[in-house]
Amino acid sequence: MKVVIAIDSMKGSLTSSEANQIVATVFKAAGYEVEQVAIADGGEGTVEAYLTNQEGEWIEVETLDPLGEICKSFYGWYPGKKEAVIEVAASSGLGLIQNRKHNHPSQTSSFGTGQLILSAMDKGAKSIVIGLGGSGTIDGGIGILKALGVEFFDENGLELAGIGNDLAKIKRIDRNKMDQRLKTIEITVASDVSNPLTGSEGAVAIFGEQKGLRSSELASYDQAMANFLKIATGNSISSLGDGAAGGMGFALRHFLNAKVIPGFTLIAAENELAAKIKIADLVITGEGQIDQQSLYGKVPVAIAKLAKKNNIPVIAFVGSIKGDMTEAYQAGISEIIPIVQSVSTLENALKNASENLEKSVKQTVKLLHLFN
Amino acid sequence: MKVVIAIDSMKGSLTSSEANQIVATVFKAAGYEVEQVAIADGGEGTVEAYLTNQEGEWIEVETLDPLGEICKSFYGWYPGKKEAVIEVAASSGLGLIQNRKHNHPSQTSSFGTGQLILSAMDKGAKSIVIGLGGSGTIDGGIGILKALGVEFFDENGLELAGIGNDLAKIKRIDRNKMDQRLKTIEITVASDVSNPLTGSEGAVAIFGEQKGLRSSELASYDQAMANFLKIATGNSISSLGDGAAGGMGFALRHFLNAKVIPGFTLIAAENELAAKIKIADLVITGEGQIDQQSLYGKVPVAIAKLAKKNNIPVIAFVGSIKGDMTEAYQAGISEIIPIVQSVSTLENALKNASENLEKSVKQTVKLLHLFN
Repeated sequence: MKVVIAIDSMKGSLTSSEANQIVATVFKAAGYEVEQVAIADGGEGTVEAYLTNQEGEWIEVETLDPLGEICKSFYGWYPGKKEAVIEVAASSGLGLIQNRKHNHPSQTSSFGTGQLILSAMDKGAKSIVIGLGGSGTIDGGIGILKALGVEFFDENGLELAGIGNDLAKIKRIDRNKMDQRLKTIEITVASDVSNPLTGSEGAVAIFGEQKGLRSSELASYDQAMANFLKIATGNSISSLGDGAAGGMGFALRHFLNAKVIPGFTLIAAENELAAKIKIADLVITGEGQIDQQSLYGKVPVAIAKLAKKNNIPVIAFVGSIKGDMTEAYQAGISEIIPIVQSVSTLENALKNASENLEKSVKQTVKLLHLFN
Repeated sequence: MKVVIAIDSMKGSLTSSEANQIVATVFKAAGYEVEQVAIADGGEGTVEAYLTNQEGEWIEVETLDPLGEICKSFYGWYPGKKEAVIEVAASSGLGLIQNRKHNHPSQTSSFGTGQLILSAMDKGAKSIVIGLGGSGTIDGGIGILKALGVEFFDENGLELAGIGNDLAKIKRIDRNKMDQRLKTIEITVASDVSNPLTGSEGAVAIFGEQKGLRSSELASYDQAMANFLKIATGNSISSLGDGAAGGMGFALRHFLNAKVIPGFTLIAAENELAAKIKIADLVITGEGQIDQQSLYGKVPVAIAKLAKKNNIPVIAFVGSIKGDMTEAYQAGISEIIPIVQSVSTLENALKNASENLEKSVKQTVKLLHLFN
């Protein structure tokens, strides 16, 4: 029997690779041939997932964090194809500034992500994959651009620092000193956010409060973002997806000609997941919480759709289920198994996730073969 | 496929019959031939379980409750074999007096259970089965005996009322007026308590505090019980099991020649459970909590042992698992499935027990047949 294991990260407890490994051990012990595929959707863990699936180098570098202080960052590097894999969470992540002082979005910058791109180019990158999830900045990506040589000036001709607060002040943008290597590098952005840069569905309106804006500040911050959009493009029309990562989506697409693809599709293609599933007897997937409202684009559902084409059964292990799962079953999930083993608090459930997942998988394997 | 379903009550949420019914519905829908066996261990639900398994009459009668007030009580009646099934919880249960005023054990009596025995004899009972679980009294069973005509006198020759407080005062016991019919009736007591009447493992020391004694009162209350034991038997040696139901075990055995059998064995024999399991493809059992410390005598383990003799797989659905289950698996349980579906409080888990059990069984049935 051959099982493909591709579980999304269980936020707050297990990375995709960790969850896969737990499940793989149980299935191996039961005599299965096991194929693991680490999953990432462009957010935190994307680099780890890439390197788990396909051997490469873990590059550690120092960059500035969103508040301009030096932090240890990283990206993945494939010397053979000269490709770098970057996650914006590594240098511009919300996790880096939560609980820090003066972490208001007006004071933060995506500069560090620009430094990762520079570092990759210094290594000789011909292509760069950038995962946009988990960002903590709302600077329209001007930090990235500034790190890459783009200059922003205010109405007095003074050069701006590239933080959120500068968006309203931008009067002129000069691309002349932008790193010339960018012209020959293919940048691919993985994102599951389809919001535009500005307006009622934009980066500020939808994600602003998660990143520390007060609701009373949203309107003026959105106007500041609109100012940047207008100066950059000559009009105020942004594309869907430009609102990803506090506007980094816009900067990468508009200034660096990045190609934007959905996070899951990217990983799936990278790993030839579809091909692996095709010859499996069983597919195991899962995630922290499966939620009726967010089934679209979710890893287990996306994987189930791949499996359904070949009538391969799919079992999803989840931390919790919310709402009706009819749609998930229709997509091709055979059964959803909650891993929680007893009455417990969320805190304990997260703490015991490894143990609970292992027990749940053992129970499942036993049931699968109870009659043979 | 043939499945035998025999789940113990899930305390605080589902009776055995209710749990069985939920599971039966799912298996029937999956095309199984279903055989349900309601379980009771002599505690609350024993009468309901009997009548579910084997058609009989539900007899409603008024008796005194432990505090001497009139309450609606009941027992099961089989006219054919002239057998009554009584649970002490019906008239002398802890649930009847919790949250009541003046409910200290010194003030309560098992008199009502004696009234149930009288009522059964009035109906013409030749045999009476009595389940001893869930009692709220610690009167040594003198209440029962008083209802049946036994008289208790203090040192001044005054007749005593038959409450806990009288145990210390008993100087003489007169059986002359005891109901003569008792001599020809076979009484069987179902109990899973093996404690003696008195001493460090006795009815008072072990169960006293659960029933409202303060720890400072245990020693003197145990001495009072010892006084009764000595007057009743002429010495101070009680049998194992006499400590059941606040001493009712002693009164029934010593005064009424009751035969004491373990709760589960009784029900199993009554239902020819072993024979039913023998021809099944699968056995489903379960309970509220499966606990390493209390595996001995537990319904799922007892059922697994029956199933193991014929290599029939056993799945146990449980509210929660505590501790290591190696012994349960060795006894013959194929797999233990916790029914909880998400992070939740105990209160919510109990409230959602029906739904959780149903979901869990659906998940299980799906997994059992995923590959065929």
